Amino acid sequence: MANNLVWKLCRPTVFRHLASLRSGAEIRHFSSSDPPPENISRYPVPYKKDLPHDIVDLMEEVESKGGFLPNVFKVLSHRPAEFRAFFSYYNELMNKETGGLTKADRELIVVATSLHNKCLYCVVSHSALHRIYSKKPTLSDQVIVNYENAELSARERAMLDFAMAVCRCDTITEQHFQSLEEVGFDREDAWDISAITAFFAMSNRLAHLTDMRPNLEFYNMGRMPRDKNKDKGNVKGE
Amino acid sequence: MANNLVWKLCRPTVFRHLASLRSGAEIRHFSSSDPPPENISRYPVPYKKDLPHDIVDLMEEVESKGGFLPNVFKVLSHRPAEFRAFFSYYNELMNKETGGLTKADRELIVVATSLHNKCLYCVVSHSALHRIYSKKPTLSDQVIVNYENAELSARERAMLDFAMAVCRCDTITEQHFQSLEEVGFDREDAWDISAITAFFAMSNRLAHLTDMRPNLEFYNMGRMPRDKNKDKGNVKGE
Amino acid sequence: MANNLVWKLCRPTVFRHLASLRSGAEIRHFSSSDPPPENISRYPVPYKKDLPHDIVDLMEEVESKGGFLPNVFKVLSHRPAEFRAFFSYYNELMNKETGGLTKADRELIVVATSLHNKCLYCVVSHSALHRIYSKKPTLSDQVIVNYENAELSARERAMLDFAMAVCRCDTITEQHFQSLEEVGFDREDAWDISAITAFFAMSNRLAHLTDMRPNLEFYNMGRMPRDKNKDKGNVKGE
Amino acid sequence: MANNLVWKLCRPTVFRHLASLRSGAEIRHFSSSDPPPENISRYPVPYKKDLPHDIVDLMEEVESKGGFLPNVFKVLSHRPAEFRAFFSYYNELMNKETGGLTKADRELIVVATSLHNKCLYCVVSHSALHRIYSKKPTLSDQVIVNYENAELSARERAMLDFAMAVCRCDTITEQHFQSLEEVGFDREDAWDISAITAFFAMSNRLAHLTDMRPNLEFYNMGRMPRDKNKDKGNVKGE
Amino acid sequence: MANNLVWKLCRPTVFRHLASLRSGAEIRHFSSSDPPPENISRYPVPYKKDLPHDIVDLMEEVESKGGFLPNVFKVLSHRPAEFRAFFSYYNELMNKETGGLTKADRELIVVATSLHNKCLYCVVSHSALHRIYSKKPTLSDQVIVNYENAELSARERAMLDFAMAVCRCDTITEQHFQSLEEVGFDREDAWDISAITAFFAMSNRLAHLTDMRPNLEFYNMGRMPRDKNKDKGNVKGE
Amino acid sequence: MANNLVWKLCRPTVFRHLASLRSGAEIRHFSSSDPPPENISRYPVPYKKDLPHDIVDLMEEVESKGGFLPNVFKVLSHRPAEFRAFFSYYNELMNKETGGLTKADRELIVVATSLHNKCLYCVVSHSALHRIYSKKPTLSDQVIVNYENAELSARERAMLDFAMAVCRCDTITEQHFQSLEEVGFDREDAWDISAITAFFAMSNRLAHLTDMRPNLEFYNMGRMPRDKNKDKGNVKGE
Repeated sequence: MANNLVWKLCRPTVFRHLASLRSGAEIRHFSSSDPPPENISRYPVPYKKDLPHDIVDLMEEVESKGGFLPNVFKVLSHRPAEFRAFFSYYNELMNKETGGLTKADRELIVVATSLHNKCLYCVVSHSALHRIYSKKPTLSDQVIVNYENAELSARERAMLDFAMAVCRCDTITEQHFQSLEEVGFDREDAWDISAITAFFAMSNRLAHLTDMRPNLEFYNMGRMPRDKNKDKGNVKGE
Repeated sequence: MANNLVWKLCRPTVFRHLASLRSGAEIRHFSSSDPPPENISRYPVPYKKDLPHDIVDLMEEVESKGGFLPNVFKVLSHRPAEFRAFFSYYNELMNKETGGLTKADRELIVVATSLHNKCLYCVVSHSALHRIYSKKPTLSDQVIVNYENAELSARERAMLDFAMAVCRCDTITEQHFQSLEEVGFDREDAWDISAITAFFAMSNRLAHLTDMRPNLEFYNMGRMPRDKNKDKGNVKGE
Repeated sequence: MANNLVWKLCRPTVFRHLASLRSGAEIRHFSSSDPPPENISRYPVPYKKDLPHDIVDLMEEVESKGGFLPNVFKVLSHRPAEFRAFFSYYNELMNKETGGLTKADRELIVVATSLHNKCLYCVVSHSALHRIYSKKPTLSDQVIVNYENAELSARERAMLDFAMAVCRCDTITEQHFQSLEEVGFDREDAWDISAITAFFAMSNRLAHLTDMRPNLEFYNMGRMPRDKNKDKGNVKGE
Repeated sequence: MANNLVWKLCRPTVFRHLASLRSGAEIRHFSSSDPPPENISRYPVPYKKDLPHDIVDLMEEVESKGGFLPNVFKVLSHRPAEFRAFFSYYNELMNKETGGLTKADRELIVVATSLHNKCLYCVVSHSALHRIYSKKPTLSDQVIVNYENAELSARERAMLDFAMAVCRCDTITEQHFQSLEEVGFDREDAWDISAITAFFAMSNRLAHLTDMRPNLEFYNMGRMPRDKNKDKGNVKGE
Repeated sequence: MANNLVWKLCRPTVFRHLASLRSGAEIRHFSSSDPPPENISRYPVPYKKDLPHDIVDLMEEVESKGGFLPNVFKVLSHRPAEFRAFFSYYNELMNKETGGLTKADRELIVVATSLHNKCLYCVVSHSALHRIYSKKPTLSDQVIVNYENAELSARERAMLDFAMAVCRCDTITEQHFQSLEEVGFDREDAWDISAITAFFAMSNRLAHLTDMRPNLEFYNMGRMPRDKNKDKGNVKGE
Repeated sequence: MANNLVWKLCRPTVFRHLASLRSGAEIRHFSSSDPPPENISRYPVPYKKDLPHDIVDLMEEVESKGGFLPNVFKVLSHRPAEFRAFFSYYNELMNKETGGLTKADRELIVVATSLHNKCLYCVVSHSALHRIYSKKPTLSDQVIVNYENAELSARERAMLDFAMAVCRCDTITEQHFQSLEEVGFDREDAWDISAITAFFAMSNRLAHLTDMRPNLEFYNMGRMPRDKNKDKGNVKGE
């Protein structure tokens, strides 16, 4: 199946971390028999039973791994063909295993881009992912207010300066690439930074269109230091 | 093959018109034995022989139908996996056969969006496509300077007003949808308008990154009224 | 003593809530024998022993009630006379017991204003206070990204629209007051909204000057629902 | 009395110059028996008889020294507690006797800040004070139009560049401080410049709220060179 | 002579008022034997003896009528042919005897336009002319800070709203003309308003190029109420 | 006759090139007996028979040389006196035979300025003139989208950087002149660049006022390489 194969490209490692953090009690399960929640999109959210199998399969894999299904999957399933293209592209950019960007770097770019574009869904969800990947529970909050005086390394600052130049549609010059090279990024990293910023230029605007609302889980995810004693028993506090 | 199947989704009717207009003499063929042109991207453009078969197949189909290969295919083939996601998404949005938007409408949205984002490649190439689809050889030039006083219908103006709101990341409200409904667009059309604007928010930024240059063919395409006498023989003059 | 009397005007109820929430283990005590932390201001932070008694008294009262001393007290004590004027003014505006604004309303105005002015300290600290007063743990995060699509009441939205007009130095007209009156605010409330926005126009700029850093406590304060069982014993989990 | 003591802090030398310049015939006396003028504020202006004694005392001292009572005193007396905080703070910043800023420097900062914020009251009144302190009758008019090509010293220009960075909420960096140091300002001067700009960020917004109108006296004050011969007889030319 | 005839079109009534107001002692005569002042332009200012006769004739007529020669004549005489075109155009727009705009209206448009364009020369000189024509000595100062809350009539406000729309290159619509018609301006008045704003869009930029400095006389001109007793004798005090 | 003499100053070489390119069949003649076209201006366009002789003479000379009469002549003839001043000034700036700017340079400045000001008429007509003078059929299209990444020489780029600084009313400094000098422009060239940008700051605003529409001929003029064989017979294809 074509769609199946498309989805084989997806390696949603993004969601693996979430799974280990989830608290069963706090998660609203979204099953095929439930009516879809109505307040997460301006557009109708399809019932699972009405969605193509490949999309349901992906949703269930994501939910199973991450503990809950991020609303972007529900909201964009209103257009299955676009859903496939969107997540295929997303997967290429955000789950790439090569290059100089860490997962935390990628999320930081998304946070800065999405704040610039005033996108509630993406800021809230990707600042959560940044907190988890970076293990820095306050840095994304700083970047949200003003990345220019956040507690960034020189490398992170150059990365966000470049991302913001792309975000604003500045004309990119050799000077921009040199600023990246001074902190150790090569031209392929520059492409990665730009492609992420560019993809979220799209994603942020789709969220504005649909008035996409973030899952409540995202707001607090990754804020608390993990309590090792608690981890032996039930996971709590997230 | 997965990729093959992905590409079956592509119905590049975009390029069919171009084919009927092409003048053999004016087209620079890009064959697998030629060195890739160096001045169309800041990043290396792969030789065809080094590209995956599905990408070469798509390129050859596009070139065969349209008479020349738009540079965006060459430039983005630097990243084959992203290339596939990009054109799969593009195809869904621009070659969709349903909904209230004509092909000319879609191109007009791209022109207005891309001018806002100062994207040379997309303005030049999609204003060419708009001229062909709309058979209005001067309207895109007007929109490029100032869509607010271009010779647009009320419907086109409302469409571009909505697209520009999305382009600027304005917070979208019911008022925006009502303005569309007053000229006959429904909410699915609103999604189409937004998704196109959003996709080119991404595409324009990739073009800035790569300093993507438009094919010379695009600049004059669709400017001249077709000469019926000439059409009996060879197509020329474009 | 004059200064004493000035401070009698201060009724730092702001800090009372904090006290009931504090977790002893999480609080870094700031005693007169400790060296002042160096990374909270670009300017020297005085030792308590070098500060005037009235300022030390106020600091100790605030710390005693709130569980920790917000860094703004330490940073601004570099200039004792300005410190007195600043907190005297702050107290008048934020701890006022009359008028139509709730404490949560006041904090929401500060959050929106301070985000507009890109002030890290004030966004982080006052979004904490908003979470506590409003018992809405996610609303300030929404306002930080984009107050226009946050889950605000019509009354809150009109309040922030007015505050933002003042924040941007728009020329204020009767139309602005009418928009407030439609949701139940009178002209004295309009003064309160404006005076808070205006005061933080000042405060935000002082924070930029000093590169004032928020206490770590603020980032997570008020995010977690209170655990009723725990409340019977010691307050924890904040 | 606390309030009395607060006001002892005030040394309104600002107004001393005004007194020496006043022409009895031109001054509209504001006595406790007169009705307050209605066109200087959008909010009610209290009768003196209804104001607290400490505020009346201050007003009378200012009027006695300066020859007329600036409208800001009347307008802000609508809120006596805020009035006290406002003028206590103002006094600390503008009448400070130490540091590298002259009185003319302070007023120039206020003029540039207030023009940026489009504040009629503060531009008109503080350009008057600048003319008096600086004895340069045209410089403030130049700064009002465009401080970048006004006839400023390098020191004044660096001072206003820094003030404008604070005024715009730019992120302040070491580079900003270095630019000040190159013309002889130290970090305490930087604080002074910023605090004045920050205070008028507040003051300008209160003037917008109240639609505060400048006293007519301010418009021409300090424009004419003093004619010593004339001073012996009637005061003229002001 | 052609040039002579061109200048016959000039009816420099602008300068007539100045003449009646001038104080001999305050005027720096600019005679053909003097070296030209060096600080009024970034470009060389020609000696009168090196200028064409028609330009010298115009300068002398203007100086004779107005009491001093505005620096714009000296600065632009660097390019005699452009000088002629500039003042011929200026004369058509500013000295026109027909239509709904008073001379004070025209000057008010120039002040608002020139402030928007940050043009020192034109703001200072035309606010002087506005004071004289309008006999309102403070209105232009108000417009300079913020025309939106200046003490304007509804007619003046609509006039400046239209001028500012033209000044910003907004797309002009029927709505703009209707707003003018509501206060009594017809379409020919709209042309006059626009043409003045457009001409000073040019003039302001030439002043920026040349760093044109206003004559000192302009700063205080028209600020003082005329003293009727003095008027019987010599005109002074302006 | 004065007017006649004014027009002797005009050497409309601008239009000479157009003449050699015109295709008789494509030109809509505008004769004195025809009704004026109604869709080229928001204001009435006079009949030739109602216009002063000198204006008709100029129009006929321009039409005779260029093959058609650019609409700006028709639209501005609504105000004959302003028409004379406008074209006299235009002629000085655009047809000047001395200095470092080529005709193509001048047109490029106009294109960049007019796009900045969103002026349809001037962008379309002067990009046509640029194509003819420069023999570069695509450069103006690039400048229209984004002059920063157009295929400009360093000299052209510095020229447009300076023009844009003037266009935006930036404060012009010695640094600006040095940037020009580095690519070979002297101060008189700087004046020329500025004066052209300034003149079109005016012209663009008049076009906005009148909703001036470009002649259809301009859109395609100069896009096609001249076919020498065809030139022997009829001129076609433009």
